[in-house]
Amino acid sequence: MPLAIFDRLESEVRSYVRSYPTVFARAVGSHITNEDGREYLDFFAGAGSLNYGHNHPTLKAALIEYLQADGILHGLDMATQAKREFMETFERTILKPRRLDYKMQFTGPTGTNAVEAALKLARQVKSRNNILCFTNAFHGVTTGSVAATGSSKFRDATGASLTDTQFVPYANYYGRDVNTLNLIEKQLSDPGSGMDAPAAVLVECIQGEGGINTASADWLRGLASLCRRHDMLLIVDDIQMGCGRTGSFFSFEQAGINPDIVTLSKSISGYGLPMALVLIKPEYDIWAPSAHNGTFRGNNAAFVTATAALNTFWADNSFADDVRVKGRLLHQRLEHMRKRHPHITALRGRGMVAGIVLENSEMADAVSERCFEQGLIIETCGPHGEVVKMLPPLIMSEADLEKGLQIFDEALTHARRTLAPAVVEEISA
Amino acid sequence: MPLAIFDRLESEVRSYVRSYPTVFARAVGSHITNEDGREYLDFFAGAGSLNYGHNHPTLKAALIEYLQADGILHGLDMATQAKREFMETFERTILKPRRLDYKMQFTGPTGTNAVEAALKLARQVKSRNNILCFTNAFHGVTTGSVAATGSSKFRDATGASLTDTQFVPYANYYGRDVNTLNLIEKQLSDPGSGMDAPAAVLVECIQGEGGINTASADWLRGLASLCRRHDMLLIVDDIQMGCGRTGSFFSFEQAGINPDIVTLSKSISGYGLPMALVLIKPEYDIWAPSAHNGTFRGNNAAFVTATAALNTFWADNSFADDVRVKGRLLHQRLEHMRKRHPHITALRGRGMVAGIVLENSEMADAVSERCFEQGLIIETCGPHGEVVKMLPPLIMSEADLEKGLQIFDEALTHARRTLAPAVVEEISA
Amino acid sequence: MPLAIFDRLESEVRSYVRSYPTVFARAVGSHITNEDGREYLDFFAGAGSLNYGHNHPTLKAALIEYLQADGILHGLDMATQAKREFMETFERTILKPRRLDYKMQFTGPTGTNAVEAALKLARQVKSRNNILCFTNAFHGVTTGSVAATGSSKFRDATGASLTDTQFVPYANYYGRDVNTLNLIEKQLSDPGSGMDAPAAVLVECIQGEGGINTASADWLRGLASLCRRHDMLLIVDDIQMGCGRTGSFFSFEQAGINPDIVTLSKSISGYGLPMALVLIKPEYDIWAPSAHNGTFRGNNAAFVTATAALNTFWADNSFADDVRVKGRLLHQRLEHMRKRHPHITALRGRGMVAGIVLENSEMADAVSERCFEQGLIIETCGPHGEVVKMLPPLIMSEADLEKGLQIFDEALTHARRTLAPAVVEEISA
Amino acid sequence: MPLAIFDRLESEVRSYVRSYPTVFARAVGSHITNEDGREYLDFFAGAGSLNYGHNHPTLKAALIEYLQADGILHGLDMATQAKREFMETFERTILKPRRLDYKMQFTGPTGTNAVEAALKLARQVKSRNNILCFTNAFHGVTTGSVAATGSSKFRDATGASLTDTQFVPYANYYGRDVNTLNLIEKQLSDPGSGMDAPAAVLVECIQGEGGINTASADWLRGLASLCRRHDMLLIVDDIQMGCGRTGSFFSFEQAGINPDIVTLSKSISGYGLPMALVLIKPEYDIWAPSAHNGTFRGNNAAFVTATAALNTFWADNSFADDVRVKGRLLHQRLEHMRKRHPHITALRGRGMVAGIVLENSEMADAVSERCFEQGLIIETCGPHGEVVKMLPPLIMSEADLEKGLQIFDEALTHARRTLAPAVVEEISA
Repeated sequence: MPLAIFDRLESEVRSYVRSYPTVFARAVGSHITNEDGREYLDFFAGAGSLNYGHNHPTLKAALIEYLQADGILHGLDMATQAKREFMETFERTILKPRRLDYKMQFTGPTGTNAVEAALKLARQVKSRNNILCFTNAFHGVTTGSVAATGSSKFRDATGASLTDTQFVPYANYYGRDVNTLNLIEKQLSDPGSGMDAPAAVLVECIQGEGGINTASADWLRGLASLCRRHDMLLIVDDIQMGCGRTGSFFSFEQAGINPDIVTLSKSISGYGLPMALVLIKPEYDIWAPSAHNGTFRGNNAAFVTATAALNTFWADNSFADDVRVKGRLLHQRLEHMRKRHPHITALRGRGMVAGIVLENSEMADAVSERCFEQGLIIETCGPHGEVVKMLPPLIMSEADLEKGLQIFDEALTHARRTLAPAVVEEISA
Repeated sequence: MPLAIFDRLESEVRSYVRSYPTVFARAVGSHITNEDGREYLDFFAGAGSLNYGHNHPTLKAALIEYLQADGILHGLDMATQAKREFMETFERTILKPRRLDYKMQFTGPTGTNAVEAALKLARQVKSRNNILCFTNAFHGVTTGSVAATGSSKFRDATGASLTDTQFVPYANYYGRDVNTLNLIEKQLSDPGSGMDAPAAVLVECIQGEGGINTASADWLRGLASLCRRHDMLLIVDDIQMGCGRTGSFFSFEQAGINPDIVTLSKSISGYGLPMALVLIKPEYDIWAPSAHNGTFRGNNAAFVTATAALNTFWADNSFADDVRVKGRLLHQRLEHMRKRHPHITALRGRGMVAGIVLENSEMADAVSERCFEQGLIIETCGPHGEVVKMLPPLIMSEADLEKGLQIFDEALTHARRTLAPAVVEEISA
Repeated sequence: MPLAIFDRLESEVRSYVRSYPTVFARAVGSHITNEDGREYLDFFAGAGSLNYGHNHPTLKAALIEYLQADGILHGLDMATQAKREFMETFERTILKPRRLDYKMQFTGPTGTNAVEAALKLARQVKSRNNILCFTNAFHGVTTGSVAATGSSKFRDATGASLTDTQFVPYANYYGRDVNTLNLIEKQLSDPGSGMDAPAAVLVECIQGEGGINTASADWLRGLASLCRRHDMLLIVDDIQMGCGRTGSFFSFEQAGINPDIVTLSKSISGYGLPMALVLIKPEYDIWAPSAHNGTFRGNNAAFVTATAALNTFWADNSFADDVRVKGRLLHQRLEHMRKRHPHITALRGRGMVAGIVLENSEMADAVSERCFEQGLIIETCGPHGEVVKMLPPLIMSEADLEKGLQIFDEALTHARRTLAPAVVEEISA
Repeated sequence: MPLAIFDRLESEVRSYVRSYPTVFARAVGSHITNEDGREYLDFFAGAGSLNYGHNHPTLKAALIEYLQADGILHGLDMATQAKREFMETFERTILKPRRLDYKMQFTGPTGTNAVEAALKLARQVKSRNNILCFTNAFHGVTTGSVAATGSSKFRDATGASLTDTQFVPYANYYGRDVNTLNLIEKQLSDPGSGMDAPAAVLVECIQGEGGINTASADWLRGLASLCRRHDMLLIVDDIQMGCGRTGSFFSFEQAGINPDIVTLSKSISGYGLPMALVLIKPEYDIWAPSAHNGTFRGNNAAFVTATAALNTFWADNSFADDVRVKGRLLHQRLEHMRKRHPHITALRGRGMVAGIVLENSEMADAVSERCFEQGLIIETCGPHGEVVKMLPPLIMSEADLEKGLQIFDEALTHARRTLAPAVVEEISA
């Protein structure tokens, strides 16, 4: 039993090994191979960490070369050539073309660590504790981040007090007819609302874990304006939706807003290596030296692949253009599917992320399970787990994209056929 | 100016680049080379993350081979061959020989994330919020960990409420004559003490950041007994002091105690790659699936080097024996130095970690600075920054150890000569 | 200067002495006399503590008789005849006729203490921390109560963390078109909303300090139903609106709901003496003996007057009937006034409580000030202080009510005349 | 069954009615009479609220006169003659003779409300959250006060987060050989101790509920000095030990310290009526108007009796002198008793408060119960309920004091005789 050791030795907290019960061995591009040689198509991309696919050859070559030359691997925040090259490249390929003026904080190499740093800094800047965060937000599971995360599964697991955050409704939370910004502004303007003056608003432009909930450009601009009027910093958590996922490097570009702080992680290293980054407007960079530290904040292997990725994919607009084209294809195909599958209750997303809302989590699980049997790795999300999430590598070929969509299409049919009788029985019981 | 870009683009939070103002390029074993080709001897070892030195050839070979074969790099907690091999090897080389029965939780690959997971789990197990932690403890800077960290620098930087922890005095905190366990037990036994019933005690066997404060085996056994008597879990944070640093794999082995939960990170990957691990007694592994997650909890590159490190260094006792021998040498040499340097007010440590307590932080900074000028990288720690910390790679040759100690010896003399007149002036002013 | 000593010796926290700058000496019924013999008509009634007027002769006689007989005054929670008589009378006149089955907890004799006890008990009953409370709620200023109070003035003054409450929109908070219960239910039903499962909902049927915001019977019934569906206790804070103010003893009677816990204070003693009471459904009375204590929880002087008040006013329905009649008169008169005073932007209230919403706090202050000059004591409230609050003693004669309304009418005219030019100037400046 | 209604209608939280199962009716001076005419001698004095005994004739006359004249009873913080007279009298009899310069804040009329106000103000003054409080402290049970109260019984009953306080060891907490101030200073001076910079220290000069733990004048002076050196306000909670209990009006007078804030309640009204007071050094009186309010903060009946009490007992030193004389007598008699009763393990107290520490709570309960049977009302306290507390009215005659001590003496013998065999049996079982 190849999985027995996981059951025996790995904590009950293990998760994906339960959904994908096989032992994976190798991966290239959009394809993962298990140890028996079976190949899977990847519509999951390491939860958004593999936008450039698995083991991209250019990045791989750069990394192996660095290792062979005995480049510094572990550097804390000492200056290294690899780090300097990353900063220069990030400035040249990302910041300057977008006329963005940010300083870079290298935190511990996890998204949650970047979020914790961002929240701390905002609280310091404004000398206030409260952070506004959104229904169905996900920002990580360390105590500061989980306090800003909506999901009761993660909140309850802490067993501790979650303080200094206040939840407000995300775009369309109460349906298309309610502009939630009006609800929030009313509370901010009312000294009796019980909303303590916030230091900042923390937002994802598209909520990934929360169900691929998409905020419009208008709503995001409205939020930015609300922040200005009520003296709050705007923090965009671009950990899952950044690095090209929505068809631009940052997910907020289409809205034309300019956040005060941005968190990046997941695909920033480009190669699946742990790395995280906080971008800070210079006027808010009031950190005292070493006031936020972390042993692996200088993961130089990641700097090397990150630099290679920026040079490979972001030297010009062609990659982003391609993502937008493929993204439109993806959403068109899903729209067509929806017409044939009435158990799709809604479609969401933008660029190369799509959320297919099904009737319930049983249906979504059945679809995901069937996909896996047929060689497609695809995840579910949403408050009730009722949304199937498509997050393919951005470099996926149209042929593979098409192939994955066909498997998914069949799985929808299969799941409806399999589950429907059970539901009928339940109702008649 | 090779460092100008760091000043311009990196956040003010940057730290070591200020102490070591040069751009590092390559490293092998105990030696780091800057981009001008100058070589430094490393008495710092990535704050304890490089116990086997930089870029160890065996680990490097294993990693490059894995990369070349396109092994899975980013795996969340899917099953991979690399992860399975790590678990098997850890069980065979570490757990079984020590008759330890632990399950493994792979958290986000930072020490603080492992600590957060450990605290959450303990709180769940006991359905209580409070965690006892120690004066001068350091456990990380995410909100849950920093609530258990003594340093006001890190605590104040959060700008938020730090809850659900209570600080108690570490071994010898009030001097050698006061057994702090008696003070703690009095509070635990007194329903009026204001100490809410704790879920767990979180302890480092030697406090690294806090000043190389060393708890005796007796004290640790007493603490374990206190935990049993008062129904608290015992969590050992072995992130900095584990992986052989004290002359055994775990720092608690000499005391013969058996913690309920252990956190590991830093040197566990052996190669400076981000990785973290929580060891949990099976009866306390009550996690719900995915209740603590993290994008990079499956950093397979680290599993590969970790496995190689375990096989290379922990297949038998010879490495640990060697560490103990070198450790004794180190402490003997420091004892001799102390006789000649009256501004050493105390010596601390065990195995290959030493704390040289100086009169104040100015003295410690002057020593560290002088060492750097002379080609030795060495850090300070302690509540006031008054302790010079020696944390050389465990694989350092005796010759290099000796060389480093000579540089340090000269720096002590130099610092005294440089600082003394200033102090005299100040007094007479 | 008769007030000089207040300026010199009383803390800056003093408040009403600033609005009503005179030294009061005596009071009977609806009339207060200052030390110079000037009489004021009272439309304020001790913020709702004097529903039966000042120094009611029947209550006064009972109290003096008790004092002369050396009845026990201070009793903690020892059994006394006065306490027993109160409990019997409360059961006979209030609980039984309304078929209410409550046990009585005598807390420290302040409303906020009763609220603190209610919140503690609800948290114990459900083993959950979170309490839902409403925008513009006021429940007192001790830490537990102020955490459930919306006003930033009180919240900010604590200087401490306010935890374990979550604010939701009160009836009509977003206008008449939005049923706020739907918003709340959406959050309760969504495991990703960030709303931790609440132990209870804490509500005022009419918000006094918050601006005389009135919840309809439908809304209250909907709230009670929401509590049942989501396993939350329903706590009605009837401290200001209870004891007959709305035309029934409890303010929730018209809605026909049956709260799990009710807090009473203010007019419960009937004579302005400190007293507070928590009513608890027997199945939730899980207190351990003395787990909530308080030195003055046995204020027997208050028990004596409270018993006399119950016997005098609540032996049959005639008093409540009379309050409803006078209440209708009050609201009719205000409706007429509104037609002549366009700066009244809204009218609120029920029974003998009315809120006259003016354009802003300057206007409300000017009206209140003018009233005081003309011999009428009347207070302002609301999030911005923009609401004039009428809270006359329930025993006020129709003639006095009419007289007060005339003064108020003239003050509206006066205020508009005085303020308008200033506003015009400001605009043109 | 005269007590049946209490069992049926009063909450399970009821406490003293369980220890003293009879219905009390009248009381004069040191004597309480139940409804059957049985008289009890009072060694309890309403937990320190009746320092001048029950229903003192002078105070009673003043109160009845005020009631008969229809004096204002309920005044919020409007200016009244009664309040002005209290302030003038307090300044003349208490503040001026002691050269104390305080402003007066009239809070809600409970001790806990005064403590909440004091903590809020200190936090505002220093812009810090943390308050140091002591093992076995009791300051009340509203959320802010109970966070500063050591007893787990009260803490656990809140069911909520208790934040922003840190407990430190009271005088002699670790025995006579450990000066706990040294322990505290070490933590305050160590930036790594985990002690967040405190706004204030909150202390009782003698801990009443905590077991009559007595701090020496030296220790109190040391504490005051610690506060100055570490920029913390010193708040003395004199609610139980003030108003003459220790032989001076304030319990801190003997130590010659000058607290920044003082809380008073219990005996301040002199007649058992609810009243509370916060004394504030003028430079710290930074309250915004009405930022701490409370419906019954103007309990004018209490102002009237308080003024009469000050005039009667504090116009000169004779009353305080008499308390000290009687106090010495009390402690001498107890010292003699101790020699004959080996189950007295310690004696504590000063002035007219004594704590007789017995072997355990069973013994203390047995003694208290026996006393009650014999007509003496006496309470227990201490973390385990192992201390019998003597808190007789200060006006008690020597004859009554003697009589009470004789009953107590016999009860000690009786308890030992009754309990000892049981204990023996238990041991041999």
